[in-house]
Order: sequence, then C-alpha cells, then structure tokens
Amino acid sequence: MPTVIPSVSETVVRVNYSETDQMGVVYHARYLVWLDVARCDHLRHSGTSYRDLELAGLRLAVSEVSVRFRQPARYDDLVRIRCWVRDVASRRVEFGYAVEHANDGRLLATATTSLLALDENLALTRLPDHVRQALHPIADPIRLE
Amino acid sequence: MPTVIPSVSETVVRVNYSETDQMGVVYHARYLVWLDVARCDHLRHSGTSYRDLELAGLRLAVSEVSVRFRQPARYDDLVRIRCWVRDVASRRVEFGYAVEHANDGRLLATATTSLLALDENLALTRLPDHVRQALHPIADPIRLE
Amino acid sequence: MPTVIPSVSETVVRVNYSETDQMGVVYHARYLVWLDVARCDHLRHSGTSYRDLELAGLRLAVSEVSVRFRQPARYDDLVRIRCWVRDVASRRVEFGYAVEHANDGRLLATATTSLLALDENLALTRLPDHVRQALHPIADPIRLE
Amino acid sequence: MPTVIPSVSETVVRVNYSETDQMGVVYHARYLVWLDVARCDHLRHSGTSYRDLELAGLRLAVSEVSVRFRQPARYDDLVRIRCWVRDVASRRVEFGYAVEHANDGRLLATATTSLLALDENLALTRLPDHVRQALHPIADPIRLE
Repeated sequence: MPTVIPSVSETVVRVNYSETDQMGVVYHARYLVWLDVARCDHLRHSGTSYRDLELAGLRLAVSEVSVRFRQPARYDDLVRIRCWVRDVASRRVEFGYAVEHANDGRLLATATTSLLALDENLALTRLPDHVRQALHPIADPIRLE
Repeated sequence: MPTVIPSVSETVVRVNYSETDQMGVVYHARYLVWLDVARCDHLRHSGTSYRDLELAGLRLAVSEVSVRFRQPARYDDLVRIRCWVRDVASRRVEFGYAVEHANDGRLLATATTSLLALDENLALTRLPDHVRQALHPIADPIRLE
Repeated sequence: MPTVIPSVSETVVRVNYSETDQMGVVYHARYLVWLDVARCDHLRHSGTSYRDLELAGLRLAVSEVSVRFRQPARYDDLVRIRCWVRDVASRRVEFGYAVEHANDGRLLATATTSLLALDENLALTRLPDHVRQALHPIADPIRLE
Repeated sequence: MPTVIPSVSETVVRVNYSETDQMGVVYHARYLVWLDVARCDHLRHSGTSYRDLELAGLRLAVSEVSVRFRQPARYDDLVRIRCWVRDVASRRVEFGYAVEHANDGRLLATATTSLLALDENLALTRLPDHVRQALHPIADPIRLE
C-alpha cells in the first residue's frame, strides 16, 4: 500500500524581533523567507530534501514571486504557512502558500512562487524524475486573489 | 515656471556580502529591500519624504508585491533600480520597477508593488492631497511581463 | 514547593537558505538573531515574556555584543543555542550563549550580550522587580574565551 | 613617489526601512552588515578588493566580533562608518570601526572584528603578501571601550 503523502504541508514559525519594523509589524520582505522555509519543508515531507538536491547538483531558483498581504503579523506571533504544489513542468515548479495566524486561523497573506531547475552553472536543466514524481499538483485549497 | 520632476527615478546600490546566498547570487528576498529604497528615493525626488509622511502620521504599507527575476545579481555588483508610479487612487499607490546591472544595463528583474495609506492605528486612510499631487502615474517604460 | 526553573535554556533553530552566504555557510550577522530568539525563550522559560514586558512599557536594548565564531553552520543544520544569565543589575542584564550543532554537539560559537532596561522614550530605567527576581545569574557553564 | 593611502576609510549608508525594528530604531544585528560594507570599502581603498581576493581563492571569515552600541540610529539617517586596520598577522587581520551620525558626528557605536584567511575549502591559510602589505595597522583613532 503506497504511503499517502499530504498534499498541503504545514510549517509553523514564531515571529522574532529582527522581523519587525518600526510600523510595529513584520516587514513585508520577511514573508519570502517563510515561504522558502515552508517550501523546503514541503519537499522534505514529499520524501526528498532541498539539501540533498543541491548536493546532487540541482538548484531551484525563484523566478517569480507574488504576494498579497492581508493582515499584519506581529512580534512573538505563531504563524502557520500552508504550502502546496500548483504546477510541475519539466524544468519548473510552482508553489502556492497561505500564511495564517496559527492560533485563530486568520489569513495574513497568500502567495505563489515559480522556481526553475538549474544546474551547478545556473543553466536551465530538467527536474530529476524522482523529484517530479514526488511533487503532486493540486487545485488551490483557498482563493489566492 | 514649474519644476520638472523626473517621472522615473534612479537608485544605485552595491551588492553586499550579506545579500548573497550559497547559490553564489543575491538571495531573492533582498530585491524587496532594494524596491523599498528605490520607492523612498522616488518620494524624495518627488518633493516629499517617507520619513516626513510617517512623522505626520501616515504609513504606506505594502499590500501586494510581484517580482519577475530574470538574471542573477552578484556580490559587489552595482545595481540600478528605476522606479515610477503606475497608478494613484485615493488610498492606494502602485509603483513599477526595473532592476538593472548598472554597468551594462542588463535587466535583472522587474516588479510592481501596491501600497495602502494607513493611519497610526494601521487603519485605511486617504493619501494627503500634496502626496497624491506629487505622484505622477506614467505608462510602464518597459514591459513588465 | 517552588518550581525549579532551569538556569540554562535551550532553543533549536533550523538554518534556512536566507541565512547562508556565498561562502556556503551561515553569514555571521545571523547568529545575533539566534541569540535574540534564545534570549526571548529564556525569558519565557523564566516565567516572563519579552512581549509582555514591551506591552508594559519596558524595552531591553542590546548595548554590547561579543561573539567568537569557532566552526561554520550550514544550510539545513539544526542548531541549538544554550542561553543563561551571567549578571543582573538594577538597569542591566548580561546573557551568555553557547551555539552548538544540535546533532553532534560541536561548538559553533560562544557569545555574550548586555542589555539595558529602557522606558518607552528609550531612556534608562530600572528593571521591574519581578523581572530581576526571575533572572538567576549563574557561572558560565562553558569557557567563553 | 608612493601613493598615500588613507589609513582610515569612510563609508556612508542611509538607513532603510528593513533595518528598523519595532523599537523604532535600527536593529542591532544590522550594524554588522555596515561593518562588512565598510571593511570591503577599506580593502578597495587600499588597492585590493574582496571580490578579487575571493576570485583568487581567498576567503576572509569573521572569527570574532565585538560591538558597543551607544546611541540608536533611525530610519533615513545617514550613517558614516570609519574603518581602520588594528593588527595584521600571517593569517589574521583585525579591523576597528566607529559608527557615527553623518550629519552631526554623534558616535553611535564602536566595534572590532577579527578575520581569518581561509582557502576555498575553508581551511586556514596565509594572507597573500600583497594583501598584508596593503593593510597598514594604526593605533585606534578613538577609544573603543
């Protein structure tokens, strides 16, 4: 019987002080780091690991990012990032994200990122078969717009 | 005779070591900081200043960001960010950006950000008239897609 | 019977990609964020919380930091930060830290930070009694030099 | 006639929004990035460049950092970092720094960093002769304690 892999992974981070700005909320660029952490967790839950992919010569480079900020996150908040695969092609994978307040589920942001598969010289290459097979695209579980 | 205000501002930054990652290029989230710096320079060139706006009780909070990464930037590169206003409404302003290698003009990234006007309690408010009048929307000088 | 509060707290973080630089290791300034996270965890374990202290009008501002880097940390490593109080005075508290590889215990860095108690106008103030009483200075559990 | 190389270099940065925290001042870890930028400028003014050193296989890794924070820096401030060489040995160089408000000269912080010369495998190595000769240690121009 095949292992059932959850198609939406969940990552929880606690907001640290360095992530805040003088508006008293999390600086918008910090969300991109959370998306990165969530994406690496998603790969890990899918049975691969970005560390191993890099050791094997693959790089996944962000080619497009789009974020819609809805409500601010604050210092010491627990934030949950849900992450899923929206689309996989031979040299490209697209992820979707919902960033939520971990305690009350309030939606803080939604996002998408496209990543390109690159070799060690940062030239376009194909995603290895085992990576493509580990990534299962699903329909967005929430509206991103 | 009215002062002619340039509708596209230019900001140059030099890539520092903290902005690189182990792929040997600038980490994608750092571009958002450059966009922020360019946007503040644009406001300054337009005769206002974000510092003064905050002191007067206004906040401009990023509500949407979209970046397309085209070529990597590297340590010690001089990077030029061109910035312009795409659209202004009563409580919202949208900026466009072209990030280029300063020496050879190669396009590194294009981006747009939408910002909302907030008061000191982070509630939606109107852009002050003098700010709206200082911001002149133009057609995108380059294709963003 | 009084609760026994551990005098050395432990915090574990996983190195994310944004923390690496093009040397292939964690950029040295990122350690200061880990120390901050560990210090806040220490306060939490001591029965107080930095979030609550700020809400009550207190600020703890770093006035001195000293770090000795011994071995590099790498992407995806689990890193453990042990944190303790070295000294408490009426308006000042000093923390010590040992940063270790979580799996094999290798010492990555040692550090100390001094923090000053400030009020909402960032003027020097006294540490509240309940904070001073919650912080128990101990002798360094490892050599910091 | 030999070129006279200034023994204290000066670098000016403008504080950007991402560098602030919810205390309304620059987050302490950001100063380490400014020190890095100032150190690279110092090497450039001394006739070498860290970019070229890395291309030639050398790495300079921070092994010790010590900062004393005296007054806060704020958003949009112009900050000047003065940097000099305190000591050079066969495999190690120590820099000193004074961080000042660019307009009024107020001292914001003082710092020292020690860097080790490493080869491409991050093993200790000797500083190349031309680098050692380009670095002229001087007595601290201000008190660091």
